[in-house]
Amino acid sequence: MEFFFKPRGIAVVGATPGQGKGGRVIIDNLKRGYSGEIYPVNPRYEDIEGFPCYPSILDVPDPVDLAILFVSARLVPAVMEACATRKIPGVMIQSAGFAETGDQGRAIQDEVKRIADLSGIRVWGPNCMGLVDAPSRYIFSTVTPTIWDTQLVPGSVSMIVQSGMLAGAFLVDIISHGTMGINKVCSIGNKMDVNENDLIEYLIQDPATKAIGLYLESFADGRRFMDLCRRSPKPIVVLNGGKTARGAEAAMSHTASLSGDGAVIAGALAQVGVFQAQAFYQLMDFCRTLSMYPEINPESQNRVAILTYTGGAGIVQTDIMDGYGLVPAELSDPTIEKLKSVFPEWMPPSNPVDLWPGAILNGPKKAFGAAMEAVAADPGVDAVFVHCFVGGFELEPDLPHLSEVARRTGKPLLCWISGERELVTSFQREAEQLSVPVFRELPRGVECLSVLLNPGRSKAAIGSDLSRPSTAIKIPDVLNKILDSENGNIDEYLSKQLLAEAGIPVVEEDLVSSMDEAKAAALQFGFPVVVKGLMKGAGHKTELGLVHLGIDSPAGIASSFNRLQAAMNGKGKVLVQRQVKGEIEMMAGFVRDPQFGPCVMCGLGGILAEAINDTIFGVAPLSFSEALSMIGRLKSQKLLNGIRGFAPVDREAFARILVRLAALGDSHPRIQEIDINPFVINNGSPVAVDGLVVLAD
Amino acid sequence: MEFFFKPRGIAVVGATPGQGKGGRVIIDNLKRGYSGEIYPVNPRYEDIEGFPCYPSILDVPDPVDLAILFVSARLVPAVMEACATRKIPGVMIQSAGFAETGDQGRAIQDEVKRIADLSGIRVWGPNCMGLVDAPSRYIFSTVTPTIWDTQLVPGSVSMIVQSGMLAGAFLVDIISHGTMGINKVCSIGNKMDVNENDLIEYLIQDPATKAIGLYLESFADGRRFMDLCRRSPKPIVVLNGGKTARGAEAAMSHTASLSGDGAVIAGALAQVGVFQAQAFYQLMDFCRTLSMYPEINPESQNRVAILTYTGGAGIVQTDIMDGYGLVPAELSDPTIEKLKSVFPEWMPPSNPVDLWPGAILNGPKKAFGAAMEAVAADPGVDAVFVHCFVGGFELEPDLPHLSEVARRTGKPLLCWISGERELVTSFQREAEQLSVPVFRELPRGVECLSVLLNPGRSKAAIGSDLSRPSTAIKIPDVLNKILDSENGNIDEYLSKQLLAEAGIPVVEEDLVSSMDEAKAAALQFGFPVVVKGLMKGAGHKTELGLVHLGIDSPAGIASSFNRLQAAMNGKGKVLVQRQVKGEIEMMAGFVRDPQFGPCVMCGLGGILAEAINDTIFGVAPLSFSEALSMIGRLKSQKLLNGIRGFAPVDREAFARILVRLAALGDSHPRIQEIDINPFVINNGSPVAVDGLVVLAD
Repeated sequence: MEFFFKPRGIAVVGATPGQGKGGRVIIDNLKRGYSGEIYPVNPRYEDIEGFPCYPSILDVPDPVDLAILFVSARLVPAVMEACATRKIPGVMIQSAGFAETGDQGRAIQDEVKRIADLSGIRVWGPNCMGLVDAPSRYIFSTVTPTIWDTQLVPGSVSMIVQSGMLAGAFLVDIISHGTMGINKVCSIGNKMDVNENDLIEYLIQDPATKAIGLYLESFADGRRFMDLCRRSPKPIVVLNGGKTARGAEAAMSHTASLSGDGAVIAGALAQVGVFQAQAFYQLMDFCRTLSMYPEINPESQNRVAILTYTGGAGIVQTDIMDGYGLVPAELSDPTIEKLKSVFPEWMPPSNPVDLWPGAILNGPKKAFGAAMEAVAADPGVDAVFVHCFVGGFELEPDLPHLSEVARRTGKPLLCWISGERELVTSFQREAEQLSVPVFRELPRGVECLSVLLNPGRSKAAIGSDLSRPSTAIKIPDVLNKILDSENGNIDEYLSKQLLAEAGIPVVEEDLVSSMDEAKAAALQFGFPVVVKGLMKGAGHKTELGLVHLGIDSPAGIASSFNRLQAAMNGKGKVLVQRQVKGEIEMMAGFVRDPQFGPCVMCGLGGILAEAINDTIFGVAPLSFSEALSMIGRLKSQKLLNGIRGFAPVDREAFARILVRLAALGDSHPRIQEIDINPFVINNGSPVAVDGLVVLAD
Repeated sequence: MEFFFKPRGIAVVGATPGQGKGGRVIIDNLKRGYSGEIYPVNPRYEDIEGFPCYPSILDVPDPVDLAILFVSARLVPAVMEACATRKIPGVMIQSAGFAETGDQGRAIQDEVKRIADLSGIRVWGPNCMGLVDAPSRYIFSTVTPTIWDTQLVPGSVSMIVQSGMLAGAFLVDIISHGTMGINKVCSIGNKMDVNENDLIEYLIQDPATKAIGLYLESFADGRRFMDLCRRSPKPIVVLNGGKTARGAEAAMSHTASLSGDGAVIAGALAQVGVFQAQAFYQLMDFCRTLSMYPEINPESQNRVAILTYTGGAGIVQTDIMDGYGLVPAELSDPTIEKLKSVFPEWMPPSNPVDLWPGAILNGPKKAFGAAMEAVAADPGVDAVFVHCFVGGFELEPDLPHLSEVARRTGKPLLCWISGERELVTSFQREAEQLSVPVFRELPRGVECLSVLLNPGRSKAAIGSDLSRPSTAIKIPDVLNKILDSENGNIDEYLSKQLLAEAGIPVVEEDLVSSMDEAKAAALQFGFPVVVKGLMKGAGHKTELGLVHLGIDSPAGIASSFNRLQAAMNGKGKVLVQRQVKGEIEMMAGFVRDPQFGPCVMCGLGGILAEAINDTIFGVAPLSFSEALSMIGRLKSQKLLNGIRGFAPVDREAFARILVRLAALGDSHPRIQEIDINPFVINNGSPVAVDGLVVLAD
């Protein structure tokens, strides 16, 4: 990809002299920063902006590694052919009018793709804003040249942005505010050829990039994406626009209906330690923070020292932290003693550390500096959050000193800044230079701190596993035949047979064909039992009155058997099950996601599933530690840990179930969906008491 | 309060000439804006800043309505005495060193309070930053005079801020950024006398104030606060710093342990239609938005038209809206037709309305203008959210036109702005003048829109009721005697007797003293029954093995009775209950909150209470509609509406229970806490199957 990032010469096809036109803007931008050869291409001009203009790409001299195309879509295929003839390795198509505009544009894009595949040319775009490399001052883009009038703050965050306009707008905003450093911005548009995965691969190797942020509307190859992220030593943050909303009517299982709304994406990202953002500046703020502290001690906990100039903000921050699992650190006695040196006598130091009176007594630099030294040295403190005010009250701390303490002690420092406008901006710029993340909004700062201290940052903690587990689950021929021949829902009994073969614990049960067999089965299991009617295509057995719970006598069996036969017109089967009592109910499932392929779901089941949607998806195959990590990400940890004297859920047993469910679905392509709801948790152990397997049609 | 807000003359006690000193700053600030008489008071000077300086407050001539004190705390009582002699109606104490600094300071504050009470002087502060009135340019504060160097943007939001430093810092920040208009900021400090309620009362009457924002660390009088908010026609927003964390060990009931962490405050605010913020700029943003659209059509729903210059941001906004219950409006056919006039042929208009190609074709002013006219006229659109970009891409809309359409059609318009720094600021200032709320962060804009469209804005919708329900619940003498004589927990049987007298449905049950009585009771209720052992002080009966469920035969009764007698050493009582089967379990409770007094709680019960903390508090007495509104604010509406073919919960029956529970607790002051958990919901109807009443010690 070096020909995109460090080309020795660039041909600009469609360069024009007119003010403000895209074709001129590209040349303008190149001229102001790019150090290689610039070759305008346009048969109508002899000279553009002082550069000789070539009638065709064929006429451009060496060296030329990259052609930037800014001509009408319909002209692009011919230019591509010429690029192929001229043996240019990289083409960046910035013009629009391709697949995004409908069938006609799509046909042109397909033609371009065909030429690219034949010739081996790598194509970036079309319908994109190209590439900006801030430290090199390389701007291969139609983005407005007025950004040169403001400060171009180089940083170590690189971005990959799918939407063209968004990339440009965002860049202008960030660069002109000058408070957030950028390394590279790659606007990939329709990603016809070069996609996010190619660029992640490049940026992982790029020494100037410390954190990678992506805005994506789709995943070009979800599994390659996951594999890259799993291996990335650099933090990655994704803002995913447009969650896959699966049509609820198309879903036969509960699992499938839950898999929309981004649940699979969220699970896949968490599985490989990628952070997820919900909005643009949040994405940048996460990246910025992570790029400044890419390596936090994995032993770090969630204990925060807050240095503030106003008790009120300390209180508010404590309240906000509560929502992110962060707690105010309990300061040690030696720390308290040290703080006393900058506190008035009437005021006992505590955390949040209110430094107003201390700053009045000692001056802000001494008060904040001494407090920073004290809390950063405290082994009970994992990070320091400082409230700063500039303008008017003589509260400004010595930021380089605070930053130096943070680096020396390995405790990340984050700041919240308020005050007079111009002073705030200067403070932000100084902080950017010092690699101290600074925020205008307290909740955003807290959120970024939580990202930093998130145990998910450590690959070990998320159970991410480079050695992928084997996926083969062998099932007996008789079941294999069913898998091959049936389609749609298969009945509960067969479904559970299949699950049992995969090593998933299922309730004891028998299919019975007479009342006597039913009674015999019940006697074998012991009363009470459950009696169910199985009918082809009848999904919601409970609602149809086909589930009889708590049958506790032979007479009950008789009555139940007769009622079921009547309800099913003699056309169904009757199933007698041991009735399992349990403390809580869980569920698990399998689904094939259009972007990530085979996926497994776990969650709370039964009535809890109706009350709260507490489910986590993971992408198959799952390693055992990944499965454990999924269970650990459920919201209802309190329930899983055992309540009311009940045994805690056996997480290892449930994790093995998830691993096997993943393997079962992964190794049998005709399995479309699986629902196991509920698993009754009996003395901690999960047993499937209902199950549904859906086969391909 | 007019002597605070519009004094004819102000004495500044402790005025000094030194640069940057508080006593000088006050005079500086007064001089630059205040139009009445200014009287520095300080025996050491003859003249300060060109004003004659008086040796004592006694020497200050008429008119003088307000004295601002900026002298050491220990001198304040003597000055107060002098103010009393001089008959000054209002005193604002800006110096610190009072109750906030410990016992010594508290003693001084008590002395000041004594003088104030005796003399009738109203005291504002101490330990505060005073008052700023932006449109009048009255700055009665030590806040830095450099704020005069920046634009003082007058607006219609007034603030009441408990923390002194915070008020000052906040003000400097907001004023210097010039993007958020302010009417009055009242920093009330220790609120020894003048408190938030006095100021709310004043600001409700103040024609210049359209929305009121408060930062509070405590409520001076929660019930007066609620009464004022209930009657306020103006929107009120509260940021509450420092949630009351009740000591869990002090709480005997589940209800009491849940009442900490701000749950009571959140319930009380919602009950009277007050919005709650979690952070400072959020507080301001809510206020700003509400002040610009104080009167939204109460029929408004949640349907939003999004006009954007980039599809990506439209998608992201849609995702964010999902979390706030807002949906993209379905545009009508006529609207789509109108949009076509500014769309290219290949692009069918839809919502989010992506105007990039249209803006390139028609220019941004025409594209955004026509789109705004179209969507605002659509009866299926409740609000319009516009993405704006300034700088570089020729995307800038005609904001005055958009604003005019919004006002004309009654559809609120909100904007998200990105772009070049200075242009963004100009845009924000222009929007402020046009009363269009504009945001730098998309999620904040969406959040503010949700506040605007929140049905809680309408007093009718929250069931807020000015006629307070009567609270008298009469109970028989025998129970009254128990209430008067017992303390701490009373047993389950007595507790439920009390609840039954209050009209709360409880399960049928009998106290039995022999095995025969137990069997007789069981036969009367019908098997299965529940048999419980009641022992003084034994709270968690289930954990102690004192609850036997599903006893289904006379033999079972015998065994159960014997086991309980053994477990209780013959010292307890045995209770036989009808076993009630139900679909889900709920709970309710009563507690006395230190700030808001008698409160009622409702929530999901049983195992659901352990899984999810879904509870809502309300302040007693409750009207029926307020109780219904509490139930409507539970998160688990899906469960309450009936799942799996079960009947929906009878909300009216449950609301009557809450009203009665409130009345019971409210009318019997020895009742400290009540827990009813669970209410079994049987065919929709709630029946209390366990209950605990805790009396005062």
